[in-house]
Amino acid sequence: MRPVSTDTATQFDPHRAIRDLRNLAARTGGPAGSRRLCWTAEWAEARAMLREELSTLPVTVEQDEAGNLWAYLPGRSADTVVVGSHLDSVPAGGWLDGALGVMGGLEVLRSLAARPEPPARSFALVDWADEEGARFSRSLFGSAAVVGTLDVDIIRELKDRQGDALPEVLAEHGVHIDAMEGCQARLENVVAYLELHIEQGPVLEHQGLGIGVVSGTVGIERERLIFDGQAAHAGTMPMPMRRDSLRAMSRFALELAEIGERHVGVTTVGSVSCWPGVVTAVPGTTTCTMDMRHKDADALAAMFAEAKDAAQRAAAAEGCTVRLEHIFRIPPMVFDPVLVERVRDAVEAVEGHRFELPSGALHDASEMARAVPTAMVFTSSIGGLSHTKEEDTPEDHLAMGLRAFHQAVVATVDAPM
Amino acid sequence: MRPVSTDTATQFDPHRAIRDLRNLAARTGGPAGSRRLCWTAEWAEARAMLREELSTLPVTVEQDEAGNLWAYLPGRSADTVVVGSHLDSVPAGGWLDGALGVMGGLEVLRSLAARPEPPARSFALVDWADEEGARFSRSLFGSAAVVGTLDVDIIRELKDRQGDALPEVLAEHGVHIDAMEGCQARLENVVAYLELHIEQGPVLEHQGLGIGVVSGTVGIERERLIFDGQAAHAGTMPMPMRRDSLRAMSRFALELAEIGERHVGVTTVGSVSCWPGVVTAVPGTTTCTMDMRHKDADALAAMFAEAKDAAQRAAAAEGCTVRLEHIFRIPPMVFDPVLVERVRDAVEAVEGHRFELPSGALHDASEMARAVPTAMVFTSSIGGLSHTKEEDTPEDHLAMGLRAFHQAVVATVDAPM
Repeated sequence: MRPVSTDTATQFDPHRAIRDLRNLAARTGGPAGSRRLCWTAEWAEARAMLREELSTLPVTVEQDEAGNLWAYLPGRSADTVVVGSHLDSVPAGGWLDGALGVMGGLEVLRSLAARPEPPARSFALVDWADEEGARFSRSLFGSAAVVGTLDVDIIRELKDRQGDALPEVLAEHGVHIDAMEGCQARLENVVAYLELHIEQGPVLEHQGLGIGVVSGTVGIERERLIFDGQAAHAGTMPMPMRRDSLRAMSRFALELAEIGERHVGVTTVGSVSCWPGVVTAVPGTTTCTMDMRHKDADALAAMFAEAKDAAQRAAAAEGCTVRLEHIFRIPPMVFDPVLVERVRDAVEAVEGHRFELPSGALHDASEMARAVPTAMVFTSSIGGLSHTKEEDTPEDHLAMGLRAFHQAVVATVDAPM
Repeated sequence: MRPVSTDTATQFDPHRAIRDLRNLAARTGGPAGSRRLCWTAEWAEARAMLREELSTLPVTVEQDEAGNLWAYLPGRSADTVVVGSHLDSVPAGGWLDGALGVMGGLEVLRSLAARPEPPARSFALVDWADEEGARFSRSLFGSAAVVGTLDVDIIRELKDRQGDALPEVLAEHGVHIDAMEGCQARLENVVAYLELHIEQGPVLEHQGLGIGVVSGTVGIERERLIFDGQAAHAGTMPMPMRRDSLRAMSRFALELAEIGERHVGVTTVGSVSCWPGVVTAVPGTTTCTMDMRHKDADALAAMFAEAKDAAQRAAAAEGCTVRLEHIFRIPPMVFDPVLVERVRDAVEAVEGHRFELPSGALHDASEMARAVPTAMVFTSSIGGLSHTKEEDTPEDHLAMGLRAFHQAVVATVDAPM
C-alpha cells in the first residue's frame, strides 16, 4: 500500500467513519437488520444523527424540495464537488448499503473543514431521499428529482401497502410534490459527483480484492411476459392436447439464462404467477417478469432481441402465444473519464491495482451521471449479499474504500482550475 | 343404433331429463354460468326444484346427516341399486357437471316408478352434498362421509374465503358434523352404484364418439416441491455464480411433462410462486405444485419415482436443493367388472361401440367404488371444457348417454338374484 499525501491523511480517519456506521446501525437497526425505510420515524432518526454530526462543522445544512439533505462547505470557487449516497434502507436491510457513502462523505467533509484554508472548490455532502423506493416502489427518488427525470404525475398516484398515498406521507416530512421541481437548482455549479458504495455483488470478493473502480452503470431492460395457453383440468386433458403456459414460461426462463451467459450480461426471471394457479388445473396463463442488464448498449439490444425471439419460440413450442409489456428501461451510463482515472489512481495507491467493473445495480450516481461528471468507488461485499441483515464487508476493505474515495475526492476538489 | 327393450323405452324419455337440466340452469344459472355453490341459497333452490319433481313420485325423500338427499323407491328386495351425482357447482360453472347425473337418475326413477309392479331390487337416487368442495376446499364431501373417509377433525377447522366456519355454515343447512357419522348407515343393502357424468375432457370428442364406458378412476399423487437456491440481486450476481431456484423449477416442469407423456399418464405443474418474487431479485426459493395421475398403480409409482429423481437432478443442475411436501394421494380404482360389462353392453346398444376410458377426474363414484360395486357412463364434452360457463355437450350425445345409463341401471335393477 502506498502512502497517501500526508497533509490530508493526518485529518482523514476511516475508522471514525466506521464507528459512525456502527453507531447508526445501533440507533436504527438491530438483530433483524436496518430499519431506515424512507419517510418513516426511523429514517428521520438516522437523519437526526447525521444533523448532530454536521452541527459541529462549519457547514450550511439544508433540506431541498425533494427531501434530500445537503451540507455545504464553501471553497474559493463556486464550482462544487458533490459526494453522497443514501441513509434510507430496505426493511430488514444491511448496515452499509447507502450509509457507507454518507458516513464516508461526512468524514471527507470533516477533513476538508479541518483545513486552515478553504479548499479550491466548494464541497457538498448530500443524503439522497428514498434511494431504495422500498415503500412506494419508486427508487432513486431524490436524485431523479434533482436531475429532473422524476415524473410527478406518476408518483402522485403511488400508495404504500397500507394504502397511504405518497403525497400525504411526503408532506409529513416537509416535501410537497408540486413544489419539488425547485430542487433542480441544486445542480447549479456542480462540477463533479463521486459516490462510495458497497458492490452488493460477489465480483470483487471473487477476484480477491477489497475495492474496485466503477466504470459506469449497466443498461437495463425490464419487461413483463404474458404466456397464454388454455386452462384445462389436470386430470382429463391428455398431454398431447395441452397448451400449457407454464411449460412455455419454463422453456423461456432456461433460454433467457443462456442468452445472459452468452453475452456475459445478466438475465433474470424474478417472479412468476399462474392462472388459475391451482394444483388441479393446467395453467392457462403464466405471467413472469424479465430483467436483463449489460454495460454495452449494443449487447443489451442484441440480448433483448434474442429474448423476444426465445419467448416466441417457447410459446409456439407449447401451442401458446406470448405478449410483452414494457416495465422499465435505462441505457448504460459510462462514467466521466477524468474522474474515473482519478479513482483508478486512488485504488492503485491504496490496494495496488486498477481493477474496473460496471455497477450491475442502479445508484444515485446513475441519475447524477445523466447531468454531471460522475464516478464511483466500490468496496467488496461478503458473499455478494445485500438487502439483507447478513450484508457485510471486511473492515479492512471498508477502510481501503474510504481511503481511496477520500483521495479521489480531494484530488477533484483541489485539481487545478 | 339398436333399439332398447320396448317395455322400458316407452317410459324413459331422455329429452324430459334434458328439459329438467335446462329448467335447472334457468333457475340457478345465467349468462355467467351456474351458481349452485354448495351450502348457499342457490344450491338450496336447486334442491327445492329436485324435491318438487320427487314430490310427484311414490318415493321416500330424506336428507341424511351429511346433507345428501336420497329418494327411495322400494323394490321386491331390500338390495338397493343407487344412482346419483351432485347438483352443486363451482362458481360460474357449467350446466351439466353433476346435474346431468342427478336429472338422468331422476328420469330413471320416473321410469321405474311408472311400472305397474315394484322392481326386483330397491332403487335410490342420491344428490351428493358438496362434490365440488369449491367453498371449503374439501371435494367429495357427502360421498366421502357416507363411505367413511371424511376426517371430521380436519373439516371442523375449514373456513371459506369470508372466514365463515364450515360447522356453522353446514348447521344452517341441517348438517351437524358431530352427528354426521350416522349417514354411513345409508350403505346398508346397497349392491351397486352407477353414475352418469360428462367427461370434462376431450377424449371422446377426439375419438368422434358421443358416449363412453368408464373403466375406473385414475390414481393421483399430489406434492408440493420447494426448490431452495440463493436469493441475489438481479444486477450484481454474475450468471455463473447464481443458484436460481426458478431455473431449477423450470427444468423440473419440462422433465415432468416428458414423464407424463412417456407413461401415457398426465402430469401438471399447476401453480408456482417465487421468493422474494420481485423483478430485481434472483428467486431464492421457488415453490410449485405437482399433480400426476395414472390408471395403473405401478405406472403411477414409476412416474412418482422418476419425478422425484427429476426434481433432484433439476435442483442439482442449478446448485439448488429440493424437498417435497405431500398434499394428496388416492390409488387407482378399477370399477366392478360385472357393472362395467353392463355399461359396455349399453354403450354398444346405443352407439355401436365399447370404447373405454378411465376417468381422469375424481367423482363421487371414486368414493363409492371403495365400498360397493360401481360403474360410470360418460358423455362427451365440447372442447373438453368444464368448470366454466362454456361447458356443453351436443344434445344427441346427452340423449345417448341418458339412454345407455338407463339401460345399464335397469339391467342391474332387474338382473336375476
